[in-house]
Amino acid sequence: MRALSFDRDSLHAHYAAGGDPVAVLAEAHRRLAAAENPGVFIALTPLEAAQAAARALPPFDPAAFPLWGLPFAVKDNIDVAGLPTTAACPAFAYEPEVDAPVVARLKAAGAICLGKTNLDQFATGLNGLRTPYPAPRNALDPAIPPGGSSSGSAVAVAMGVASFALGTDTAGSGRVPAGLNNIVGLKPSLGAISTRGVVPACRTLDAVSVFALTVADAWAAFAAAAAHDPLDSFSRDRPAQGFGSAPERLRLGVPTPATRRFSGDAAQAASFEAALGRLASLGAEIVEVDFQPFYDCAALLYEGAWVAERLHAVAAFRAANPGALHPVTEQIVGGATTLSAVDAFDGVYRLAEARRVTAPILAGVDALAVPTFPAFHTVAELEADPIGPNSDFGTYTNFVNLLDLCGIAVPVDPRADGRPGSVTLLAAAGRDGLTASLAAALHGLCAPRLGATTAVAPPAPTAPAPLGPDEAEVLVVGAHMRGMALAPQMTAHGARFLRETATAPRYRLKALPGTPARPGLVRVAQTGGAQTGGADTGGAAIRAEVWAMPLDRIGPFLAGIPAPLGLGRVTLEDGGEVIGFLAEAAACETAQDITAHGGWRAWVAQDAAAVPA
Amino acid sequence: MRALSFDRDSLHAHYAAGGDPVAVLAEAHRRLAAAENPGVFIALTPLEAAQAAARALPPFDPAAFPLWGLPFAVKDNIDVAGLPTTAACPAFAYEPEVDAPVVARLKAAGAICLGKTNLDQFATGLNGLRTPYPAPRNALDPAIPPGGSSSGSAVAVAMGVASFALGTDTAGSGRVPAGLNNIVGLKPSLGAISTRGVVPACRTLDAVSVFALTVADAWAAFAAAAAHDPLDSFSRDRPAQGFGSAPERLRLGVPTPATRRFSGDAAQAASFEAALGRLASLGAEIVEVDFQPFYDCAALLYEGAWVAERLHAVAAFRAANPGALHPVTEQIVGGATTLSAVDAFDGVYRLAEARRVTAPILAGVDALAVPTFPAFHTVAELEADPIGPNSDFGTYTNFVNLLDLCGIAVPVDPRADGRPGSVTLLAAAGRDGLTASLAAALHGLCAPRLGATTAVAPPAPTAPAPLGPDEAEVLVVGAHMRGMALAPQMTAHGARFLRETATAPRYRLKALPGTPARPGLVRVAQTGGAQTGGADTGGAAIRAEVWAMPLDRIGPFLAGIPAPLGLGRVTLEDGGEVIGFLAEAAACETAQDITAHGGWRAWVAQDAAAVPA
Repeated sequence: MRALSFDRDSLHAHYAAGGDPVAVLAEAHRRLAAAENPGVFIALTPLEAAQAAARALPPFDPAAFPLWGLPFAVKDNIDVAGLPTTAACPAFAYEPEVDAPVVARLKAAGAICLGKTNLDQFATGLNGLRTPYPAPRNALDPAIPPGGSSSGSAVAVAMGVASFALGTDTAGSGRVPAGLNNIVGLKPSLGAISTRGVVPACRTLDAVSVFALTVADAWAAFAAAAAHDPLDSFSRDRPAQGFGSAPERLRLGVPTPATRRFSGDAAQAASFEAALGRLASLGAEIVEVDFQPFYDCAALLYEGAWVAERLHAVAAFRAANPGALHPVTEQIVGGATTLSAVDAFDGVYRLAEARRVTAPILAGVDALAVPTFPAFHTVAELEADPIGPNSDFGTYTNFVNLLDLCGIAVPVDPRADGRPGSVTLLAAAGRDGLTASLAAALHGLCAPRLGATTAVAPPAPTAPAPLGPDEAEVLVVGAHMRGMALAPQMTAHGARFLRETATAPRYRLKALPGTPARPGLVRVAQTGGAQTGGADTGGAAIRAEVWAMPLDRIGPFLAGIPAPLGLGRVTLEDGGEVIGFLAEAAACETAQDITAHGGWRAWVAQDAAAVPA
Repeated sequence: MRALSFDRDSLHAHYAAGGDPVAVLAEAHRRLAAAENPGVFIALTPLEAAQAAARALPPFDPAAFPLWGLPFAVKDNIDVAGLPTTAACPAFAYEPEVDAPVVARLKAAGAICLGKTNLDQFATGLNGLRTPYPAPRNALDPAIPPGGSSSGSAVAVAMGVASFALGTDTAGSGRVPAGLNNIVGLKPSLGAISTRGVVPACRTLDAVSVFALTVADAWAAFAAAAAHDPLDSFSRDRPAQGFGSAPERLRLGVPTPATRRFSGDAAQAASFEAALGRLASLGAEIVEVDFQPFYDCAALLYEGAWVAERLHAVAAFRAANPGALHPVTEQIVGGATTLSAVDAFDGVYRLAEARRVTAPILAGVDALAVPTFPAFHTVAELEADPIGPNSDFGTYTNFVNLLDLCGIAVPVDPRADGRPGSVTLLAAAGRDGLTASLAAALHGLCAPRLGATTAVAPPAPTAPAPLGPDEAEVLVVGAHMRGMALAPQMTAHGARFLRETATAPRYRLKALPGTPARPGLVRVAQTGGAQTGGADTGGAAIRAEVWAMPLDRIGPFLAGIPAPLGLGRVTLEDGGEVIGFLAEAAACETAQDITAHGGWRAWVAQDAAAVPA
């Protein structure tokens, strides 16, 4: 048990072999006690209560309950019924009567709450030391801060106590602690997870985030948590979808060398360069972009109007409880008291301008890759200057929520000095699946240790992401298949390869004249009917590929397909039906019949001169 | 010339018959002088300069220059090179070096600027009296205010001096003056028209609007003006599209009787009820909705944070020029000086909540119909109380830009007391074409006088809106045609009927078995090829319908079409090719050949028992 990794695959294998979550919860408590890191949790679910919840679980069924038996931790600015919510401010504490919707969803998926974790007070900070409680120690190196504001959640995962943990992320609080503790930090698109029952930091920018040992685990928790909440005015309908094997080609924006910032940490610079090499080896096309507009946007977060959102969140409490805030929190939040409504709208206008300036940069790439932070700073440095090093940690995170990007921090190869390497992948809202898929491939390729445990990152998923609710399967049988002349039309319309297959044995394949040659797939009559001549009678199974194409792109794709081809229904070898290419029979009558080859690739291979692929 | 209406159809007919815009401009000046309404314009383009612009026009070609020779007026918070911009505040005046992009686009379409019109100072107001210049007189009744803030622009159009005019609309300034002067006021979706070169009121809510005598004219000016402006951080890519004959069916939300507000004006209540009867006679389904959430949202505009946007716009000027603002403007704008950034974000949160609460109401209808204002108020009432009656004018307008709706105020039948009737149609952003199409049908049906002129509203367009850039033509040949069993599938996917047509004479039509029966359209081989038996040889032209379907809906539509049907390319009688239904030949071989009927409808009519339509 002591060697058991708490990642989901390991725990579910343990449960499948008869392991008991009651014992796993006891082991979580044993590990926590053994770690002698008393600042991680502000409040623990009593072990007996957690074990009672484990006993109340339905029978082990990871398909129905994807988080079955996984112990998780919750940042103490998110409501869990039965435990106080403090936001790391004892005077602010209240006893919520119900779980926040995100917590309720995780429990419904089978997860068991270990307790509430420490944080930079009111989620204001990126270092984890701004708390009146003992600060959590970094899971890897006590000289380094745990990172914040979601400090305890990150450390609990990195220590192997929790399978995953919830954080919140407004300025980077779900990513910086992940980078500092060698774990994964998934910051979803704004609105994907309900923020009801969460103490606000900046309501327009707050996201609930997930820490986990592996990308797949972070994704599983995110997928269980994400749901439109019609009672949350900042909720949006953004289901988790699209997580699977990394896309084969991807334009990945990275800061130009001149606009990279490492604050003197040469090892961090080298680590980032090495990570870009890893990403390139995964097929990403590295595109250098001027990062100054992103830094300009980032400056708005603490130098401009948004601090007033933090003040809004605590204004009544602060007025009623003078002196109750942590001195650094008071210094930051108190700075907003002199800001006027005109200042606030000035910030809104400057953000609109930042979005205008960065929009063409973002439109030119599929995702961005940045260091999770520019440099390591020590606890000692932060004790000497609580603001400066903290701000530096936010260099690559502060602009993200302002620009409505999703992001995921993922460990890469350790740095030359042994400290953890971490990069963050960012993309436009809604592309959580894309960045997570690439992050999983990168994590698997680098295979670092998981947090501070002895386990290592698992291989990336090899199966493509399952079909999303906004996608349809499209069968291609000719030059649209991978590596062939018209495949770029598929990717240009956002389609992605799913699998190889064959049609039912009821089709004939013709080679239509033209350049490139195009396939004509024609179903043969099942009953007698009119015969069309000797060679054409009788159908065969034709090799083909199934792709996933966004439903809203099928129309534009179809609009670019000339006669005699069209899209209809094709029956597959397994009897299923998908949208697929059909050809008008009249145009095929005089075309060369290549059915005997069994498929387009085989014919092209035999007759390469005729078909420039 | 004195009888010539300045609507576009009349002026273009005049020009087509040899009329000269130089003389039309002189007539515009004559009319203005004769009206003895000196408060309408703050600055006039000298007649000689306007006539020089007319002489410099390319030859009359309304297809290439849709606004050719049309005199237009510009609200004096929008830059026109060569004339000062005052925003009705003399001390604020500056001389812009270039036209605002919206003005430049209108000139490029052939329109000629008459000058700059009066307004409620800094566009703050809905009555038109808050100006240090002589206030414009209402074009119909001097006891009634001109409406504001775009007062002069509305009166210039209603008097028949300008063909159309630009206003701006933040709280209703493009709609209330239209209702008070018996003309059309089109308030586009936010961001559709560039707001560069416009003195801001509330930058997040400002829209440039269009006044015109007819809906078609307002649409023509809007279509010329709308364009994405990559230099404007509030610009969005929203081309004007979809204006034509009114949709055949439409769910139209209206306030429940209990939540209608008429401020004691019974004639206005009766006028609105009558207008709903007119709308129902056009095929609209009237759906009563609780309007309280919209009033709650409206209250945010002046009672909450957004006044600070108005202060932001004039803050530097106001500080440098104490006492320069109109007393009422100062009273309103000055109210924002005590608002904090926390107050501003409080407004942002309350708006997010208002959007959440109204979203399901808006999702349940295609558009809303409201009175343009609850009641007529007099100049005398406003002189006694500059705030109260003004606020009442905004009852049905103040929430519109906050909720990102588009709107159009359109004259209906005159009220029982002879005052103009007006309703406003509202819809989600981007549906400008839908509301304008319905407004044109309503205007044509009621056929009121145009403004204060003697002309009357023209019949509505009978041609459907042309194909938009986000639509594709889809040919249907069977049960998807109008009035038949599967036509609801078309409308459910946002498709709209365009025209009847026939295929090229190269197809055969089969009736596939099933309920409802479905058509199988199969192209015949053009050359010999294999013959398929006596009755099937030789193609015919098959009657069909062309619909416009949003490109992004074609995929979901296709996903619901079972085999053996699909979508491919069909050749029309005129040789054009469109996306259309095709059927797999194999499935058609044993189906009944109905080609001889010439089309599905004819076959159904002859064989009604077999086909439940």
